[in-house]
Amino acid sequence: MNEQNKAVVLVSGGLDSATTLAMARDQGFACHALSFHYGQRHVAELNAAERVAQSLGAVMHKTIHIDLGGIGGSALTDHSIDVPDKAGSGIPVTYVPARNTVFLSLALAWAEVLEARDIFIGVNAVDYSGYPDCRPDYISAYEKMANLATRAGVEGHPTHIQTPLINMTKVAIIQAGSRLGVDYSETVSCYAADAQGRACGRCDSCRIRREGFAAAGLADPTQYVSY
Amino acid sequence: MNEQNKAVVLVSGGLDSATTLAMARDQGFACHALSFHYGQRHVAELNAAERVAQSLGAVMHKTIHIDLGGIGGSALTDHSIDVPDKAGSGIPVTYVPARNTVFLSLALAWAEVLEARDIFIGVNAVDYSGYPDCRPDYISAYEKMANLATRAGVEGHPTHIQTPLINMTKVAIIQAGSRLGVDYSETVSCYAADAQGRACGRCDSCRIRREGFAAAGLADPTQYVSY
Repeated sequence: MNEQNKAVVLVSGGLDSATTLAMARDQGFACHALSFHYGQRHVAELNAAERVAQSLGAVMHKTIHIDLGGIGGSALTDHSIDVPDKAGSGIPVTYVPARNTVFLSLALAWAEVLEARDIFIGVNAVDYSGYPDCRPDYISAYEKMANLATRAGVEGHPTHIQTPLINMTKVAIIQAGSRLGVDYSETVSCYAADAQGRACGRCDSCRIRREGFAAAGLADPTQYVSY
Repeated sequence: MNEQNKAVVLVSGGLDSATTLAMARDQGFACHALSFHYGQRHVAELNAAERVAQSLGAVMHKTIHIDLGGIGGSALTDHSIDVPDKAGSGIPVTYVPARNTVFLSLALAWAEVLEARDIFIGVNAVDYSGYPDCRPDYISAYEKMANLATRAGVEGHPTHIQTPLINMTKVAIIQAGSRLGVDYSETVSCYAADAQGRACGRCDSCRIRREGFAAAGLADPTQYVSY
């Protein structure tokens, strides 16, 4: 691996994307972290993304504003829909329409300008909570489309969508990240974090995260409003 | 066709997308027009998009802001790159990285919220000027990816990416749109239009458009700064 190889890494400020960034850096990539301000409730994540990108040595961090909130349809961007405390069956109301597709597309645009051939995204099909755009079939179809979409693809420089977490359990993710020096106190996973980034302790995302630390036998550094 | 069927139609304010909107309406769709403010030089297009959406009976028109300009890499968004007067060989500098992929992804998000099953985009593989994301293979791969990405796709309601212009010449497009009542004086195709929407008359896009009207035997209603 040439140390100059560039990657675009989607960094939300959550546990999974921080781990993904640590893995990309560990593989020797010059990491260009990309975050989105898309009308999400949990703007605390963006502060976390900034901290994580800096701590884990990203060479650049860019935040793109998109008004997905104007599109509506999710409890994460539409403030008239409540975030549920417990996971139901099927695809949850916290699903943001086509979110990973939108994020990967902007990552693809930036990758093309940077001449980066790798895009890292921390999707996970194990603890995936029913989101359709976290599955291997989806990622594979995205990669195929991407290589027909871009100048780089057409000119014989394919883009790889790297999903190092896709088949890992939350426990394994936390263990891997801890070995790579991720400071999880900097990350925010909660769907309803307050302005200081403190987690609600009750939502689906908080539950999965808390259980992950417990099962990994590691102290949970998350700051909770209530525990 | 149930008259209540909804479609999202990408409307740039140019000739092709205006024709596409007219075709979607002619097929009986309730058209939801979608435009983007992405740091393009030709903001005059956005005014044109608003006029076109209204004239051609769109039931709603939404403009989403994205700061693609921060990503750079194209003469259309990076003001340090000159728009060339003449087309060169290969993919031109006016190519915006992953543009159709980004636009289709936001259209997909809106379509999912609206429960629209059809997305219309006025791409054209004949006069396509070398853009990779205007080819049938790309559109087909996009559709396949989209139906793995979304709740609607997973639940058995596939999304169709409709490209009625893809194999049409510019002449045929102008003739079809004229039959459907498109007022082309409302549209702006120029890459370097001035604030009033007047076309430069010299860029690749102006040349293709002018030749199209001439070959169709129709008067060119475009307002040029210089002819």
